Amino acid sequence: MRYQPYYWPEIQGRGEFVRLALEEGGADYVDVARQGRGVDAMMRMFEAGKRPPFAPPFLKAGKLMIAHSALILFYLAPKLKLVPRSEADRVWAHQLQLTITDFVKEIHDTHHPISNALYYEQQRAPAKRYTGEFWRRRVPKMMGYFERVLANSGGPFVFGRRLSYVDLSLFQIVEGLRYGFPKRMKRFEKKIPRVIALRDRVAKRPRIAAYLASERRIPFSQWGIWRYYKQLDT
Amino acid sequence: MRYQPYYWPEIQGRGEFVRLALEEGGADYVDVARQGRGVDAMMRMFEAGKRPPFAPPFLKAGKLMIAHSALILFYLAPKLKLVPRSEADRVWAHQLQLTITDFVKEIHDTHHPISNALYYEQQRAPAKRYTGEFWRRRVPKMMGYFERVLANSGGPFVFGRRLSYVDLSLFQIVEGLRYGFPKRMKRFEKKIPRVIALRDRVAKRPRIAAYLASERRIPFSQWGIWRYYKQLDT
Repeated sequence: MRYQPYYWPEIQGRGEFVRLALEEGGADYVDVARQGRGVDAMMRMFEAGKRPPFAPPFLKAGKLMIAHSALILFYLAPKLKLVPRSEADRVWAHQLQLTITDFVKEIHDTHHPISNALYYEQQRAPAKRYTGEFWRRRVPKMMGYFERVLANSGGPFVFGRRLSYVDLSLFQIVEGLRYGFPKRMKRFEKKIPRVIALRDRVAKRPRIAAYLASERRIPFSQWGIWRYYKQLDT
Repeated sequence: MRYQPYYWPEIQGRGEFVRLALEEGGADYVDVARQGRGVDAMMRMFEAGKRPPFAPPFLKAGKLMIAHSALILFYLAPKLKLVPRSEADRVWAHQLQLTITDFVKEIHDTHHPISNALYYEQQRAPAKRYTGEFWRRRVPKMMGYFERVLANSGGPFVFGRRLSYVDLSLFQIVEGLRYGFPKRMKRFEKKIPRVIALRDRVAKRPRIAAYLASERRIPFSQWGIWRYYKQLDT
């Protein structure tokens, strides 16, 4: 099947978790909104049919239309061999991915704690305060949890020796935190050696390495989830 | 099977979405943390086994341990006949529930936009600003989306004439917004007649009505997701 993921064409954002899985899984796919007039096609989907998505990313897979990155991954993973087969394992992977989803929202809110309809410059002071609490409490709690998950699994991945889509997402979390908070992350990384080792293993996977070196990988920028503001990285 | 949901015993919070489904589904269940020493039992689960949850709510179902309210509902719903059977319908329900999950986080952040480790009184000014944007943009967008979903389904429920767990969650969203923002909600409700009609239908279901009248329904309070602060309801 040729999968049709839809996401904003100029950012990694929440779509990147899906793109990484499609790439590692060797899927046949077209990143629709990155084609000519693709954004128009994406916008039309919000008005189309009886079950329109609320927001990107969403995936068209045959007749199915699936929104929310964690659910797209839950659906794709067995087909792309990116999760073990048992129900318990699929539930565990989805549960971890939903925790990552929650974390991604918190990462976004470091620069937009009041509203994503306002500019960063309109919410600088609360952003600084939010980010302080985020690094004091939330990053240690969230990343510490995944460090323990990897200790429990024996590593290098969350299912032990077998890669899953959750590992690809953790790779992306590390990459994004490094981009947004290079100084803070440099200090923090020694506390999560297993997560960093996982990140290094994922980066060396042949398909992921080829993807990262290609034009299909959109660079980090000052848009979307992952941003760098010097004032927030002290 | 006797289900064992775990959640903070003194609040509705994110656990309430699970409780409503168990009640409407007529499930045999024990709300573990509301039993004697139940909170201790819940806290031990975070250290137990190789796959501990990150946070409540979670559900023990036989050998399975499942965290995140949306995933618990995805798992329970076919067993409790709270979702149609087809894959497309289950995906649609889960997708809607994940949008509700995102909305619940935004509702929580109206009173805690900076950090949930600080008191409301320490973040009054950003809370007021956040809440203004929330009611100006997010509530109309989110609730307007569900209003359209109901228009598309023909109503009264998101799957038409058949009740699903998503409807129970939408009921809870309306109840929570009425508690937290009585004045704002009173003005807003006329814009979402289908959602309000759904809320009324759910409230009249015999099992839900019995639950709401029982001691099993924890009252709204100034803890957790749903809170009332006069300053935020102008």
